[in-house]
Amino acid sequence: MQKYKEIFDSLNQQINEYIIKSIPQKEPKQLYEPYKYIISSGGKRIRPVLTMLCCGACNSNPQEALDAAIAIEILHNFTLVHDDIMDNSPIRRGNQTIHNKWDEATAILTGDIMLGYAYKSLHNYHYHKRNNDIHNIFTNALIEVCEGQALDMNYNSRKEMTIYDYLVMIKKKTAVILEACGTIGAIIANADDLKINALKEYTSNLGIGFQIQDDILDLYAQRSELGKKIGQDIIEGKKTYLIIKAKLLAKDKDDIDLIELFFNNNGLGEEYIPKMQEIIQKSGALEESKQEALNYFNKASKSLNVLENNLYTETLEWLINWLSYRNY
Amino acid sequence: MQKYKEIFDSLNQQINEYIIKSIPQKEPKQLYEPYKYIISSGGKRIRPVLTMLCCGACNSNPQEALDAAIAIEILHNFTLVHDDIMDNSPIRRGNQTIHNKWDEATAILTGDIMLGYAYKSLHNYHYHKRNNDIHNIFTNALIEVCEGQALDMNYNSRKEMTIYDYLVMIKKKTAVILEACGTIGAIIANADDLKINALKEYTSNLGIGFQIQDDILDLYAQRSELGKKIGQDIIEGKKTYLIIKAKLLAKDKDDIDLIELFFNNNGLGEEYIPKMQEIIQKSGALEESKQEALNYFNKASKSLNVLENNLYTETLEWLINWLSYRNY
Repeated sequence: MQKYKEIFDSLNQQINEYIIKSIPQKEPKQLYEPYKYIISSGGKRIRPVLTMLCCGACNSNPQEALDAAIAIEILHNFTLVHDDIMDNSPIRRGNQTIHNKWDEATAILTGDIMLGYAYKSLHNYHYHKRNNDIHNIFTNALIEVCEGQALDMNYNSRKEMTIYDYLVMIKKKTAVILEACGTIGAIIANADDLKINALKEYTSNLGIGFQIQDDILDLYAQRSELGKKIGQDIIEGKKTYLIIKAKLLAKDKDDIDLIELFFNNNGLGEEYIPKMQEIIQKSGALEESKQEALNYFNKASKSLNVLENNLYTETLEWLINWLSYRNY
Repeated sequence: MQKYKEIFDSLNQQINEYIIKSIPQKEPKQLYEPYKYIISSGGKRIRPVLTMLCCGACNSNPQEALDAAIAIEILHNFTLVHDDIMDNSPIRRGNQTIHNKWDEATAILTGDIMLGYAYKSLHNYHYHKRNNDIHNIFTNALIEVCEGQALDMNYNSRKEMTIYDYLVMIKKKTAVILEACGTIGAIIANADDLKINALKEYTSNLGIGFQIQDDILDLYAQRSELGKKIGQDIIEGKKTYLIIKAKLLAKDKDDIDLIELFFNNNGLGEEYIPKMQEIIQKSGALEESKQEALNYFNKASKSLNVLENNLYTETLEWLINWLSYRNY
C-alpha cells in the first residue's frame, strides 16, 4: 500500500542524507573517494530501513536507531567491497566495482576504513544501557559474515552440496546481518526479550526467503528488470537452493547428467542456460523453491504477531509482500 | 637491566598464552588456520606489552589491560596481513605471508575476521566507566592506520617528499596505534588526563624514534641480525627519513644524481646499495637520522616524569634504551 511505501521511502531518504553526510571530507582522497562512491551508489537500503522500522515497531522513534542503521549499512557495503575483490566481480549496482575502477589495494583499504566508520557510528550508543549488547551483536555479525563468505568460496569448488550446507552459508552470509538489524533496532527501543526475539526471527526469515528468491530471479527474471545477465549463477557454478533442489528432484537421465556436469565443472557455459531453466522447472525444483521462499516469508509474518500494532509493525508486514512480489 | 627484561618477558608470555587461547577452535578452518598462523608467528609484541605497562605505570594491575592489549595486537596483525597483500610482500617474520601461503581472498577475509575478534576483545571493557573512550581511541587508530597505509602507497609513486610528509605518514601508520596503547592502558587504570597525555607522548615519540631507527637498520644492520635483506627500502623505493635527509644534505654532483635517480625511478637496483650506504653516511644524513631518533627517544623519556615511580614506569624507561640500542 502507498502509505507503507511512503514510510519506507521517507526512512530511506533520511538514511541516504545522513550516511553521505557521515563520510568525512578529508585526505587521503584515494580512500575517501571510493568510500563515498560505493555509499552513494545506492542499493535498496533494506538493512538500515529495517533497523529503523524494528525500532519503531517497538514503540520508539525510528530516528533513535539511525546511527545503528548507518553502521549496519556501512558494514554491509564493506562486505560488498571486499567480496567483489574475492569474487572478481567487475560490476556492482550497475557501476564498476572499486577494485576494478581503482585497484585492489584501494579496495582492500577502503573496505577496512569503512569498518572503522561503521564502528564510529555505533559508538554513538555509549549512553544506552545496552550499549554492550549492541556492540556484541554487531561484532558477531561481522565475524559471521566473514565466515559465510569463506563458506561461499569454499563451496565454489565442492562437487556435492546439501540444502543444509546452503542454509548454513546463507544464514551466515545474509541472515546474520539482517538479524542484527532486527535485534539492534529492538534493543535501542528498550524492547523486552520476547519482542527482540520476534524481530530476530522476522529479519532472519525475511533474509533467507529473500535469498532463495534471489536465486530464483537470477535464472527466471526478465533480463531488463534484473539489471544483470540472466543465469549468472549457472555460469559461475553457484550452488543455489534452486540447483541443489533440482539435483535432488530431476528424474530424466539427460537432465541428471547435465546437472552433474554443472557440479563437476563448477558451472556451465551460457548456452546451457535455457536448458537449465527448463530442467529446473520440469523437475519441480522451481516450484519447490518458490514454496520454500514463501514458507520463510510466512514465518517472518507470523513472528510479528507478538508486536503491538503500529504503523512501523504494519510496514514490516507490508515489506514482506513488497519483497516477495518483486520480480527483479 | 635484567629485572626489566624479566617483566617484559613475563608480560610477553602472558600475552602469547592469552592471545592464542582467544582464537576460536572452529570452522571454517580456511579462516581460523591463517588467523592462528599469523598470531602464532610472534613478533616482539611491543604494542600489547606497552598497553599493559602503561596500565601498570598508572598504578593498576597490568592484567586489567590484557583484553585491550590483545585487541591492539590483533589490530596490528590485521594491518600486517592486509598491508602484505597491498605491498606484495612474500615473507613476514621469516614465514610466508598469508596471501602467499594461501591466497589473496583468504588473506583479505582473515584480516577482516581478525578485526572482528579485536573488537570482541575490546568489548570486554563494557564494565569500565570510560568504555566509550576506549572504543573511540581504538576505532580512530583503525581509521588512521588505514590512512597511513594509503599515504605510504601514495608516496611510492611520488618523486618529491619532505620530512614533514614522512612524519605525517609515520605518525598515522605507526605512532597512532602506539598512542592507543598508551592512552588505553592509562584510561583502563583510571589515570588522570595528565598521565594519559604523558603516556600518549611517550608511546608516540617512542614509535617515531623506533621507525626512524628501523629505516636506519634497514640499510646499516648486520644482514644476519636483520633477518631480511639489507637495503630493501632502497630497492623498493621507500622514501625513508634517511633518504629524504640525504637528498637535503648531499653536496657532490654524482651523489645528488644517484639520489635523484632513486626518486625518479622509485628505487634502485641491489648493486647500488653499497654506494647508497656510502652517500648517506658521507652526507651526514646517517648521523642526523640517528640524532633525530635519539631526540624522539629523549622526548619519550622526558614525558615519563609526571608518572609515579614504580616498577612499570621504570620498565617503560628501560624499554626506550632497550629499543634504541637494538641492532636488528
